Order: sequence, then structure tokens, then C-alpha cells
Amino acid sequence: MENISLHESVRIEEAYARIGNEVKKTPLLTSSTIDKLTNTRIFFKCENFQKAGAFKYRGATNAILKLDKTDSVRGVCTHSSGNHAQALALAAQNHNIDAYIVMPENAPLVKINAVKEYGGKITFCKPTLEAREKTLFHIQKETGATFIHPYNNIDVIEGQATCFYETLIQLEDKPDIVVCPVGGGGLLSGTILAAKQYSSPTRVIAAEPLMANDAWQSLRVQQLVPSIDPQTIADGLKTSLGSLTWPIIQENVFTILTASEDSIIRAMFLVWERMKIVIEPSAAVPLAVILEHPQVFSKKSVVVIFSGGNVDLKNLPW
Amino acid sequence: MENISLHESVRIEEAYARIGNEVKKTPLLTSSTIDKLTNTRIFFKCENFQKAGAFKYRGATNAILKLDKTDSVRGVCTHSSGNHAQALALAAQNHNIDAYIVMPENAPLVKINAVKEYGGKITFCKPTLEAREKTLFHIQKETGATFIHPYNNIDVIEGQATCFYETLIQLEDKPDIVVCPVGGGGLLSGTILAAKQYSSPTRVIAAEPLMANDAWQSLRVQQLVPSIDPQTIADGLKTSLGSLTWPIIQENVFTILTASEDSIIRAMFLVWERMKIVIEPSAAVPLAVILEHPQVFSKKSVVVIFSGGNVDLKNLPW
Repeated sequence: MENISLHESVRIEEAYARIGNEVKKTPLLTSSTIDKLTNTRIFFKCENFQKAGAFKYRGATNAILKLDKTDSVRGVCTHSSGNHAQALALAAQNHNIDAYIVMPENAPLVKINAVKEYGGKITFCKPTLEAREKTLFHIQKETGATFIHPYNNIDVIEGQATCFYETLIQLEDKPDIVVCPVGGGGLLSGTILAAKQYSSPTRVIAAEPLMANDAWQSLRVQQLVPSIDPQTIADGLKTSLGSLTWPIIQENVFTILTASEDSIIRAMFLVWERMKIVIEPSAAVPLAVILEHPQVFSKKSVVVIFSGGNVDLKNLPW
Repeated sequence: MENISLHESVRIEEAYARIGNEVKKTPLLTSSTIDKLTNTRIFFKCENFQKAGAFKYRGATNAILKLDKTDSVRGVCTHSSGNHAQALALAAQNHNIDAYIVMPENAPLVKINAVKEYGGKITFCKPTLEAREKTLFHIQKETGATFIHPYNNIDVIEGQATCFYETLIQLEDKPDIVVCPVGGGGLLSGTILAAKQYSSPTRVIAAEPLMANDAWQSLRVQQLVPSIDPQTIADGLKTSLGSLTWPIIQENVFTILTASEDSIIRAMFLVWERMKIVIEPSAAVPLAVILEHPQVFSKKSVVVIFSGGNVDLKNLPW
């Protein structure tokens, strides 16, 4: 029952009307080389070109625009060392709202600098989940800021859903398959809801690193298996699913396929070399999955979501 | 007098109608970060997304489509270790025409492989201009193939002119300035002819590496100064101007500005990091020039031609 009400409360068209002028309408690119190699027709949705470099800007913007006046004055907060932190900081800055970001003290300098550049007020903590949550709790108490969870938040999911919704507007025909990376499940559950509502023939396939296959495990045992300290180059996909995202995924995802670290690096290199665009390792996982499981995708029309392009250019995996 | 007849024989609209379905209509991208940094409004013409990874595909395709039947059967040939070789090989392959490519035996393996992949028939020679020309002469004698010079060829110049012509179609307003890298001058003279004919208010500024500033020197002394073994990271811009390109440039270019190696690398990094796209060092020279000479561009609308994206990803300059 919870699920049904959740589905109903996600209004994708309204969200797109709300954030449409604030987010970039990112292009769909194609590559004849990759099509030949995979025997498919792939449309790459380039959220690496999105503001703050990732799809996360959609959810963050939607959450910020749904704050009421009182909450806006108090600001927003989150804990993240990744793309959500940057996205929330920038979306907040663009509306003159304070953004308090809790980051682990060992976060990479490039990420710290990006959050600073977007005006985020950073509080460092020890690199444990407990320290993060405790620090965030104190900030919330002090400031009254609204916690915007990176993915387990209905407004965030609704914002992420606009990514595939926009893709469907850009395409002439409904695709056979959409492949979406899965970490916490915000983009995936948003994509599922968009497909259900606007493209029912499309199968939603999740792509996950083999080395962080908690969603795959969860689906297999039919209950949420948390992700415990996984080691993968796809650093955006290390998180566990959430109580809001998991039921949507469990009920609707067509399947979850995994890719090895080698495949992820190969896919990332292929995109840089042939498509001349910069994607981060997490964004390469869907193509890596297609390369590893070609029979699933052969002769199909496929949307691949390039989730982001934030990568340390001075530390590449090849 | 030669010049006037040359101008008249370049028919850009006809060339665009001829090659329009074969070349990619490459996007114009913008970056609010770079606009803020430079106090300009820049439209980046992304020929790094062009087939074979560079604008060269336009000129090569135009030259191939203008061959008569007899010449088509005999094939085409050129000497180049760079983007022209790849472009000519691919354009020829797409029309079932043989392409004989003379490459120096020390050419990078990635470039040799790219030409091979596009079906080019490679003959290696010693890495001197004399050896190149001699080898090419023998191939021409044996095969009867038509020599397509990388830039000193009227059909090639006409093809390159479609790049800025297409940009003008994509833009709502005529830009104040177009900045174009200069090596042999094929793209620059094509851009000049397109601007003269379709956007007379636009100033054409050439961008050249300080370490390979033969065009700058030529303009200063008003005669063609050859380029002698220059050392620059912008390997596409090492060549001398040609007898066809130099007069067009001499007569019409607004100015030639140079950029240091450091600026070129900085500009390239900025584009990769902020725009999430892969450009080669030669393509970064126009932005490097804008960073070094901000007063020339301040408050102007500027087109920057990203000439190509062929770079060895395993050997980056940072």
C-alpha cells in the first residue's frame, strides 16, 4: 500500500515543468562504432553535461524548489562526498539558500573544492557512517536546515525521474530497453516510474559493478541487502539501496546485470576514445553491462544513461 | 588576380549540399563557467565529434565527391601522419575508393592503427619531407591515384569552409569574432571565405602556438615564412602555410594571436574538466589565445572551432 501511494505522489510532468528551465536539457548522442560493436542502436543520455556534472542536479533542484518559505530560509543539509553534495550546493546557491554539507575528512580534494566553489558550507567528520549521521544531526539541530537525502527522498526521486522523461520526449520511438546504473537507487527508481507512466513497453535494466553487487543480491534474496565497504572504481555506486527506492526496484526492474572492473574501465575508455566525451566510471557501468551480456541487447533499441562526468583527470584508471 | 578567381571557384553552399549528408552536423556547445571566466559569450563548434574525430573529414569528403569516375577508380593518396590521413582513409572507404597513405615510420601507433582501421593502405617512409614526397611520387606513378593535399587543395579548403558555414546556420546572430587554429591554413582559409560571404561583420582571428608561430611571422613580414621543425604539444599545427592558403589569410585575417604551451594545456584541461568533452591540444589553442589575450574578446560573442579530438588517452599532458 505504501508503494501505491508513493507512485501516486510522484508527479513527473509537474516536476519537469518546475525544474525544466533550471536543468540543462542534455543531448542524446549516438555512436555508429559502438552500435556496430554491440549490434544495437544505443541512445546515450548525456547527464555528464548536466549542471554540476551529473543527473543529481535534477533531484537536488526539485527538492529545493519544493521547500516552503520558512524552510528555504533555514537552508538544506546533506552528507555526501560525491555528486549529490556538489549538486545540492549549486542548486542551493542558485536560489540563495544555505547548503550545509557533511563530508568525510578523507574526501578527495577535487570534490571538496567543487563543493566549496558552489558555495557549500562544509563540515568535516570521521569517515564512518556513524560520524556522518551524528555530525549531520548536530547541524540540523543548530540550523533547522532540511535534510535532503541523496536518494531516499521522494522529491529527489521525482527529480531524477525527469531524466528518462526528457529522453522520451527527445526520442521518436519508445526504446526497447533503458539501462541505468544503480547505487542508492534514486536514478533507477525515478527511471522506473517514468517508464511505467510514459513508456510501458520499455524494459528497465539496472547495471551494477560486480564488486558492489548489493542490489543484485537484494533482488536474488528478495530483501534489501546492505552494501558493506565495497571496492569498485565506480565510486558513485557503492551505497546501499534505501527504504523508498528498494520496493520500487524490487517490484519493477526487469533485471539487474553486473559488470567486472575490467569491463567498466574498457567501456569508459571506449566512450572517451570514440565519442570524445568525459564520463566517470559509474556512468560507464551500463555500457560495460552491454559489452558483457551482448545477447540481452542484440538488435534492440537501447537508452543508456551516462549518469555523470566528474572524474579526477589527473588520476585515470588506464 | 589569382585570388579573385580562387574566391570565385569556392562554392560553399554547393559543397555543403554535396557533403551535408555525409558529415556530422556537429553541435555548438556553451559553458557558463568559461563565459564567466573570459567575460565573453562563446559558442564552441565541436568538430571533435566529427567523423574520424576532426574537421578534416569535411575537406576529404568534398575532395572525394568531386573526383570524376576515372579518377575514383584509381584512388586517392596523401602523405600525413595526422587527422587528414584518417579522414581521407575513412571518406575513401565510405565510397569504395582506395586510399594510399604515406606515413613516417615513427608515426604513433594509435594513428597508424586508426588509418588501418579505416582501410587505408599505408606505405611507411623515413621521417623527412623529402622521403615523404618521393614515396608519394612513386605511389602516384604506380597507381594513378589523385593526390589530395591536407590543405593546399581548393576542394579541401571548400570542404573546410562548410564548418563555419554550418555554424552560421546554427546561430541566431552573426558572431563578433570566430577564432580558428592555424597550421597549414586549410580550416582558416575556409573559415575566412565563409565569413566573407555569409557573415561580413565577423572578424576572423587565427590562433597559433607561440612555439610554432610561422603564420604570425608570415603576417608580420608579409611573406610566407616556412615552419621549420617546431616543438609544440599542438601537433596538428606544426605545418607551413601553403601557396593557396597563405594569400587568403594574408589578405583577410583580422589578426593572428599566439598562446604558450602552458596556456594550451590549461585550456585543454579546462575544457575536459568543465565541458566534459575530449579535445586535442591543437583544438585548445583558440581558447588558450582567449585566456592569454582577454581584452580582445571581452564582452564579444565568439565562435571557437574545436578542430578535433584525436588524442592518445594514455599519454596526457598533465
